[in-house]
Amino acid sequence: MTSTARVRAAIVGGSGYTGGELARLLLFHPQVELTQVASSSRAGQFLHSTHPNLRKLSTLRYCHPDDLTGCDVLFLCLPHGSAAQAIERYRGLAPRIIDLSADFRLRSPALYERWYGHAHPAPHLLNEAVYGLPELHRAQLRDAAMVSGHGCNATTAILGLAPLYRAGIVNQDIPLVLEAKVGSSEAGAAATIGSHHPDRSGAVRSFQPTGHRHTAELIQEFGVVSNSELRQTIAFSATAIELVRGVLVTAHVFVNERIEEKNLWRIYREAYGREPFVRLVKERSGVYRYPEPKILAGSNYCDVGFELDVEQQRVVVMAALDNLMKGAAGGAVQSLNCMFGWDETLGLEFPGLHPI
Amino acid sequence: MTSTARVRAAIVGGSGYTGGELARLLLFHPQVELTQVASSSRAGQFLHSTHPNLRKLSTLRYCHPDDLTGCDVLFLCLPHGSAAQAIERYRGLAPRIIDLSADFRLRSPALYERWYGHAHPAPHLLNEAVYGLPELHRAQLRDAAMVSGHGCNATTAILGLAPLYRAGIVNQDIPLVLEAKVGSSEAGAAATIGSHHPDRSGAVRSFQPTGHRHTAELIQEFGVVSNSELRQTIAFSATAIELVRGVLVTAHVFVNERIEEKNLWRIYREAYGREPFVRLVKERSGVYRYPEPKILAGSNYCDVGFELDVEQQRVVVMAALDNLMKGAAGGAVQSLNCMFGWDETLGLEFPGLHPI
Amino acid sequence: MTSTARVRAAIVGGSGYTGGELARLLLFHPQVELTQVASSSRAGQFLHSTHPNLRKLSTLRYCHPDDLTGCDVLFLCLPHGSAAQAIERYRGLAPRIIDLSADFRLRSPALYERWYGHAHPAPHLLNEAVYGLPELHRAQLRDAAMVSGHGCNATTAILGLAPLYRAGIVNQDIPLVLEAKVGSSEAGAAATIGSHHPDRSGAVRSFQPTGHRHTAELIQEFGVVSNSELRQTIAFSATAIELVRGVLVTAHVFVNERIEEKNLWRIYREAYGREPFVRLVKERSGVYRYPEPKILAGSNYCDVGFELDVEQQRVVVMAALDNLMKGAAGGAVQSLNCMFGWDETLGLEFPGLHPI
Amino acid sequence: MTSTARVRAAIVGGSGYTGGELARLLLFHPQVELTQVASSSRAGQFLHSTHPNLRKLSTLRYCHPDDLTGCDVLFLCLPHGSAAQAIERYRGLAPRIIDLSADFRLRSPALYERWYGHAHPAPHLLNEAVYGLPELHRAQLRDAAMVSGHGCNATTAILGLAPLYRAGIVNQDIPLVLEAKVGSSEAGAAATIGSHHPDRSGAVRSFQPTGHRHTAELIQEFGVVSNSELRQTIAFSATAIELVRGVLVTAHVFVNERIEEKNLWRIYREAYGREPFVRLVKERSGVYRYPEPKILAGSNYCDVGFELDVEQQRVVVMAALDNLMKGAAGGAVQSLNCMFGWDETLGLEFPGLHPI
Repeated sequence: MTSTARVRAAIVGGSGYTGGELARLLLFHPQVELTQVASSSRAGQFLHSTHPNLRKLSTLRYCHPDDLTGCDVLFLCLPHGSAAQAIERYRGLAPRIIDLSADFRLRSPALYERWYGHAHPAPHLLNEAVYGLPELHRAQLRDAAMVSGHGCNATTAILGLAPLYRAGIVNQDIPLVLEAKVGSSEAGAAATIGSHHPDRSGAVRSFQPTGHRHTAELIQEFGVVSNSELRQTIAFSATAIELVRGVLVTAHVFVNERIEEKNLWRIYREAYGREPFVRLVKERSGVYRYPEPKILAGSNYCDVGFELDVEQQRVVVMAALDNLMKGAAGGAVQSLNCMFGWDETLGLEFPGLHPI
Repeated sequence: MTSTARVRAAIVGGSGYTGGELARLLLFHPQVELTQVASSSRAGQFLHSTHPNLRKLSTLRYCHPDDLTGCDVLFLCLPHGSAAQAIERYRGLAPRIIDLSADFRLRSPALYERWYGHAHPAPHLLNEAVYGLPELHRAQLRDAAMVSGHGCNATTAILGLAPLYRAGIVNQDIPLVLEAKVGSSEAGAAATIGSHHPDRSGAVRSFQPTGHRHTAELIQEFGVVSNSELRQTIAFSATAIELVRGVLVTAHVFVNERIEEKNLWRIYREAYGREPFVRLVKERSGVYRYPEPKILAGSNYCDVGFELDVEQQRVVVMAALDNLMKGAAGGAVQSLNCMFGWDETLGLEFPGLHPI
Repeated sequence: MTSTARVRAAIVGGSGYTGGELARLLLFHPQVELTQVASSSRAGQFLHSTHPNLRKLSTLRYCHPDDLTGCDVLFLCLPHGSAAQAIERYRGLAPRIIDLSADFRLRSPALYERWYGHAHPAPHLLNEAVYGLPELHRAQLRDAAMVSGHGCNATTAILGLAPLYRAGIVNQDIPLVLEAKVGSSEAGAAATIGSHHPDRSGAVRSFQPTGHRHTAELIQEFGVVSNSELRQTIAFSATAIELVRGVLVTAHVFVNERIEEKNLWRIYREAYGREPFVRLVKERSGVYRYPEPKILAGSNYCDVGFELDVEQQRVVVMAALDNLMKGAAGGAVQSLNCMFGWDETLGLEFPGLHPI
Repeated sequence: MTSTARVRAAIVGGSGYTGGELARLLLFHPQVELTQVASSSRAGQFLHSTHPNLRKLSTLRYCHPDDLTGCDVLFLCLPHGSAAQAIERYRGLAPRIIDLSADFRLRSPALYERWYGHAHPAPHLLNEAVYGLPELHRAQLRDAAMVSGHGCNATTAILGLAPLYRAGIVNQDIPLVLEAKVGSSEAGAAATIGSHHPDRSGAVRSFQPTGHRHTAELIQEFGVVSNSELRQTIAFSATAIELVRGVLVTAHVFVNERIEEKNLWRIYREAYGREPFVRLVKERSGVYRYPEPKILAGSNYCDVGFELDVEQQRVVVMAALDNLMKGAAGGAVQSLNCMFGWDETLGLEFPGLHPI
């Protein structure tokens, strides 16, 4: 591919938050031309009618999903369940699909059924789809035809903990407890009684203290990096806080043997020293000693830090990212870059703001 | 009335924010028994299903408005327009009515029609209703049968500026400009796309930069305290900010002649020195030098301050209150106390929190 | 004591947040006269110079701590370490002391030294002080001469979990993981670089992921209700979020045997059915299904809820309170009421606001 | 200049918010190499010690201002007053200076003295400096040796109102009232009691209701676009709200004659139709009908909208921007682009986020 022939990209489900973020990124991507954005409810309207930050930047109007024509890569930003139902039609429109929903994240139909409560409608495709996290699946992404998204909370937890599982130091006899603090954009663009500002503002609201579906992705991916099926109990809970974008996961991991801080530093440096979008954040002093989501708004970084309780053999891992960026649209663009063999940071250079 | 025979109060439209605040106040009022709370959409449910702060404090359930029975005083917390439509029925239920909507705030049918865009459905009652602001209409409230509420923004502006109009020092040849900064609870308990947290959070959103209906109340009440019809142009605009409860009005008043700060102090002290719920706030130093709504949450105070630009003959008046308290439910209870000849502070003692 | 002779109360360290909250409560307490408030830095200034919500409510001025005279009960709201240093002097001023610092919370000098890093300066008093949590120590509080405060996060966790420890169902072979989400008022009234608004606003900041001192109180009090020394690993971490008042603790408890939800309901109802300030919050639907701190601002309630993962034998307990009220000043007044044999709710009736 | 020889830029006062924002922009600017960042208090430390969003993006360390060496362009991000004191030294270091303080904004020494309370220390340079707003002074910026910054609130007001003054339709017999709603980053990076989170959070705090210094810039620049000295009274007040970045100015302008909305549209379209960083925002429906600062965080846009009260001959103008971007650092880079004849949008392409 030469730089003059840009990849033609289209988005289905463009009026939501993930679709809007993806549109923003693709409009500025040097190798991509965003040619179509579909929305069943907004067909005919300007893109900036739902994404006011794009005013003056694009004259694109939404088309109806039924009117989509062929393109080089198609992004699916649909409600969970919708992508799998119509996947054959979408595959007919583009040789490469990046699905940002939960539909194709799991490889095992049984695991899917257990966590989603019903059989998968297209189980034959589960094995074909690549879990779109370059830090774990970079080689498979190259030339993949079908890439799945990754849960925003799951991504945070996986990037925070994968090095420990890969190193084989996690004591799987003790449950892993993870607590996610999440912003309101995770729940999407549709107004609900739970998102009503006087109620939601300042909330510290427990959401799915048990049974959170992102747990399935943790089980799968920790198994991948461990090279064996996970036998550990995973206890994942999430709390919605006063925040629009961002997630911080705090995880309590007990390790097999007494270790020192320098061992952890070595494990994390080996895992992430060359990763463009994972930063280790652990300072002895100052305000920003650990990962914090607010300075990541708009950036594609996942910041990872830890603290060790030597006596308890406990590692507290903290990981943060922007759920709409590295947790969704930014991650999808990073996968796109991998699929086409481009520099992985193309279109993802924005470093985030401070203060914000 | 003896202290053993409590006044039986009922609320129509109890599931909204104003109704909930009123229920909270009446449940703790030493002279009142809250006997009925009606809601057409919530009939049969517990009061705390919509007002979680009342959990464990009351076993009352909502009744349907059609099932209301007689009581001593009836509070109407209905959407604007509803009270006037059914006012005769409500008057049949109780000898005393306190309406918190905008329906009976204006004395002039013509003024109503101009600002609300249609003729008033019960114009004969407009003159009977007393504008429920004790600071301006205390004598009339005593033994009134029908009391109207007052717009939360209008109340703030009126209490801030009435002393200057009464003193006759306002230069009415120059327009009065007022800017209200308001919280999200002003828009009520119904979720809308505009109240969706990711959009509303952190907003600084202009609302009715021209044509705000509360202007009509200002025209009326500034006329009352001036003892003559207002001839001044009133320019009122409102901006919704990140805040749930509270309003701050900043008003720019030009005065007839060169005055000194001590003149203003005297005017305000004479107006409010004996008022239980208006405080003058003007400090030379410190953080809380002027009125601020946040420390007023839950309190019935209206805080008023000012700053003088001697050269420009301009007074900047700042006034703050909690729109659900002094701006609505608290104001209604203060009126109730006046109507029954009780101590005006009964049930309204909570001073507000700091920090909050 | 007759109702005409009010208890004379004084506060040392009145200019901080805990001192201000206590002053507010005592000014409205029907059995108490607040006679002195001391502050070494504010002597001579009005109380409302630091607590603007008290404007117009009190003409008290701060005295210097050296100028304090005798009273019936003395509240110590000093930085940790200060109370213990001068405790003999304070005991000379009043027959009853309520200390809100951490100095006298632990019964064991060894436990104190381990968590605070130095020997206790007055170890002989540790056994005399009563841990001021009426739900656990009501009988001892009656007529106690010296009462300690309780950590705000610790209180939340203890009230949330004590029923499970008392019932003997906690599997102590598995570590207890607790995550507290806390507001900025926990860090006190002194401005620091960490509390600077542009940095602190919207923060999701890990604070003491390991080694949090409140852990010591959990060890002690879970031991008390278990009737045996705790042998379990306690993993407590705290995250500062966008919130001024309030704390939510989420705890992951593994239980000894397979239980059903109704067992948990029974355990919690027996523990708290008659407690005036603990509410069980667990709804099947609606927005407020679990405890949330924001509706507790200014109230003395601790709300407790839970969710059970039957298969994992895991109980997620959520507990919320206002750190300045039930977590500090409100708790101290509740202890005061116990000490003097008054109704435990005196002066603590405010139910909290909604929306807020 | 060829693309291989980048302009060497240096920043003095780089540890503050404006300096940090400027560093971020220059690090990504394709024509610039950021070679030195000076800070008297942080010398030797990494840039990201104060600007955590720059972690991993630069290995620059702060130098001491005394150690600065020559460069092509020098940005001064110093406290007001400091730049003027040492301006000769800075001019010796670089042929081009962009000063972001208030020191060189005014052309008239008399106007400076009136608003800043003391004589200007380098009055001979006032006429040399160009007010760095390309929308008003683009031609003069080309090849300018010395460019001044512009007050963030003043910039917002000037961009909002300049078209009306240029069109000559403002009725200068009626005072102009402007109310700015501003975020906490305007007050800078130093922690104060006023910026302490529990106090500042949720504040609606009047700041300089009279006598705000940005008024001087309005007088000057409205005079420039009017081609005659302003004779109108300017009433500018500012209110600090819950917001970190951003300002919204609401201005009430009375016009000379009865006009229609289409006249205003024409005036604004002619003024800004070709401006890269001013957008007209005025929608008939939807949530984002008027300018809002929150979606501008990190962008260089100034959004301008208006509403007309035909009868009152009043125009309410609303203008919004990010005070650290278009109001400070972004504006400075836009001026830089003008000075060197580059595309004015270089390094300023980030469109802002939604939701945020």
